[in-house]
Amino acid sequence: MNIIAELSNLLGEKHVLTGADVLAYSTDWTGKYTSNPLAVVRPLDTQQVSEIVKLAAANRIPIVPIGGNTGLTGATMADGAILLSLGRLNTIREMRPEARIAIVEAGVILSNLHTAAAEFGLNFPLTFGARGSAMIGGNLATNAGGSNVLRYGNTRALCLGLEVVLPSGEIMDLMSELHKDNAGYDLRNLFIGAEGTLGIITAAVLKLVPKPAAYGTAMVALASLSPALDLLNKLQISTGGAVEAFEFMPASYMELHAELFPNARAPFEKIHPVNILVEIGATAPRDTLPNEVGEIPIVDLLENALADMIETGEILDATVAQNETQRIEMWQRREQAADLAFHKKPFVNCDISVPLDKVEVFILEFENRLALIDPAATTLYVSHLGDGNVHPTIWPSSASPELEERIIEALEDVVSDLRGSFSAEHGIGISKLGSMARQKDATAIATMRAIKSALDPFGIMNPGKVLP
Amino acid sequence: MNIIAELSNLLGEKHVLTGADVLAYSTDWTGKYTSNPLAVVRPLDTQQVSEIVKLAAANRIPIVPIGGNTGLTGATMADGAILLSLGRLNTIREMRPEARIAIVEAGVILSNLHTAAAEFGLNFPLTFGARGSAMIGGNLATNAGGSNVLRYGNTRALCLGLEVVLPSGEIMDLMSELHKDNAGYDLRNLFIGAEGTLGIITAAVLKLVPKPAAYGTAMVALASLSPALDLLNKLQISTGGAVEAFEFMPASYMELHAELFPNARAPFEKIHPVNILVEIGATAPRDTLPNEVGEIPIVDLLENALADMIETGEILDATVAQNETQRIEMWQRREQAADLAFHKKPFVNCDISVPLDKVEVFILEFENRLALIDPAATTLYVSHLGDGNVHPTIWPSSASPELEERIIEALEDVVSDLRGSFSAEHGIGISKLGSMARQKDATAIATMRAIKSALDPFGIMNPGKVLP
Repeated sequence: MNIIAELSNLLGEKHVLTGADVLAYSTDWTGKYTSNPLAVVRPLDTQQVSEIVKLAAANRIPIVPIGGNTGLTGATMADGAILLSLGRLNTIREMRPEARIAIVEAGVILSNLHTAAAEFGLNFPLTFGARGSAMIGGNLATNAGGSNVLRYGNTRALCLGLEVVLPSGEIMDLMSELHKDNAGYDLRNLFIGAEGTLGIITAAVLKLVPKPAAYGTAMVALASLSPALDLLNKLQISTGGAVEAFEFMPASYMELHAELFPNARAPFEKIHPVNILVEIGATAPRDTLPNEVGEIPIVDLLENALADMIETGEILDATVAQNETQRIEMWQRREQAADLAFHKKPFVNCDISVPLDKVEVFILEFENRLALIDPAATTLYVSHLGDGNVHPTIWPSSASPELEERIIEALEDVVSDLRGSFSAEHGIGISKLGSMARQKDATAIATMRAIKSALDPFGIMNPGKVLP
Repeated sequence: MNIIAELSNLLGEKHVLTGADVLAYSTDWTGKYTSNPLAVVRPLDTQQVSEIVKLAAANRIPIVPIGGNTGLTGATMADGAILLSLGRLNTIREMRPEARIAIVEAGVILSNLHTAAAEFGLNFPLTFGARGSAMIGGNLATNAGGSNVLRYGNTRALCLGLEVVLPSGEIMDLMSELHKDNAGYDLRNLFIGAEGTLGIITAAVLKLVPKPAAYGTAMVALASLSPALDLLNKLQISTGGAVEAFEFMPASYMELHAELFPNARAPFEKIHPVNILVEIGATAPRDTLPNEVGEIPIVDLLENALADMIETGEILDATVAQNETQRIEMWQRREQAADLAFHKKPFVNCDISVPLDKVEVFILEFENRLALIDPAATTLYVSHLGDGNVHPTIWPSSASPELEERIIEALEDVVSDLRGSFSAEHGIGISKLGSMARQKDATAIATMRAIKSALDPFGIMNPGKVLP
């Protein structure tokens, strides 16, 4: 019996897609990567994932897991492989508000978990533009970051336990619900961020946090990044670390956004060099009127801090959201970053991090280097400034893989000089294999390879990704 | 040339101890574990560690790293092995207050790092009783916890980068200084908590946090643990998560402490069932007088919260530290836990965690089970209640390894029923090998073994520890 028939026996025919039906899975959402999977399979539960992997292992057929297909690195490209969609493992197994945990399957869509947690006044504080499609399994596989890492950490920091199907098909139970658990090697963090190359994450125990009772959200205009960092530090001190997001959009971002979204209401009358979207989240009792211990509402606290810095001239202009509609407007502008970045081709989209006081010098240095390589290239930057994480997009003057690679190498060199990382929150996939080979410690790569060989001796799990 | 001569050539004779000189290293500090190392070596730097490991690998001689010798699980017992002391790698390579990081070698004593950070108004927020001897390398090797995990996380959460000497002697550079870094598998977390079985940690990039400008510290007496958790939740909400420590000592702890330390000033006139040491840390501006935005000092905030619950009868009594001397008194009582636990032999000391609302039922259930096994046994509990982490000490009625094992198995069973962990913050060493074999997922153990074999094919790195 051939493999397709065996898979159909296992899952039912309608959950094994071949031929024209796999087209929807053949291209990533940016249109940059395409591949030709052998078949797309849609298991219902962990047991079926295990059976599929056993079948793949027995036949030495590569297997590539896929969630919401919102990745940016080509990590789910699957030529000749079984593409395993986690989409039907979409059950929230348990919501335990008193323990502040959610036990969820890998196919749960991120925004669905937000909705489920909000019913208990809680939040799963991982968020980014693609939250309406991205799935928890993909978030874990890539150790996704996003806009609230500053306060809550990345996906890794939000995960207590995992269930993993190993390359052998065995199911590994690491579903700890504990904040302190030192029972042996930290396998959980090894599988988080491994992009499906060591096994398939099928479920997780995730931390929930109190949903802020109120937000203070503002757009702030400044002349440069240095006073922006002052603002961040002042707000962190006065709120005891309640800054949820601190996002940077330069003038060029504001201009392109106004061009592509002409109906969006601009935050300021003119375009300023540095624009910050800042958001503070308040737990009670800072959310309402001044209370019995004399505390003030979060919006007032934000306005006071901004007013002080407007008076000293450090801030050029500021708009505080007065209601949820205005807050959503501010966030939309930031979350349309992908629409801006991918609105013309060819593009090179990057994801780097540097110490946060080095973001300004990073941009200056890279622009200098780029001018030497491709003077006609144009660029766009957007940054989770509070994490030192920058997403440069470069539109080269011509479509040339060789030119793209030279641009990426120049970018890496600048990052490396600043002790940064060429991969901050998107992962490696296939797009950064060259960077891994050039930039990562060779002993570290050899160690990763040894682990990969030990856990996946036949090399069937998402081959050709992560490791150069 | 024999191995001792080769080591002496490498390090100088006075840094290779043999014979009677190794006696000081032969026994752990609790006196529970003893071993007979081949030699104790004291390298000066990472390069020398690398050379020693290469020599050990070439000769297939086991090698066991040791820091401050404050572990509780026998993880540094080293029969016939080279015991490698990290004590001379005690340089703080860099203090970078603006980036809030410290780059330190493995032999830096924890309290020395506290002192160095305090000079910049910062803190490395890992702390526990043995901080005056424990070294950073050991903290990392065991993923140490302690009293402030509630607010700041365990050692793993406080580490950004590592330098590791692998079992081959190669030096691996994972010294990232970034909060977002997704460049390949998370090797850092694999080596943290591996207790020297995968390699030797020689240096690390550690996170620093603002040192609270003021503390609110109190001893609180309650009738049971349930209102204690209410108190914790109330304080977390009113301070926005600024509770640094929430430590539980039952009546029996207070009684034994009064007996062993008769000169210590008791916090209350009588002994109460539940005694909590709570500490809140304030960043400015909550530290001084009510400020321009109407906020109140941290001590008043704590007193207000306690007064409310005294009025409703939830709290029986409370004492707030009025100065640093009183604060230190409160902490001393808690940090003398080891003196209490080890004051008579034989003892069984344990380190478990359960969901925090299960601590009460854990103690009740275990006492019931213990009464069936050894009715004359006595017990002591102390708990990082905010983490659900309990340290039970059992004094069996007789010295019998078989009886000890039955007690531990009963304890494990209760913990397992409550979805807890048999190892919360002390690690496995040799003391919990039986627990690992009985309680840990078999697939997880097989995966750990595969990683161990891949990275340490000759099995020379701290053999016989962690993996059953």
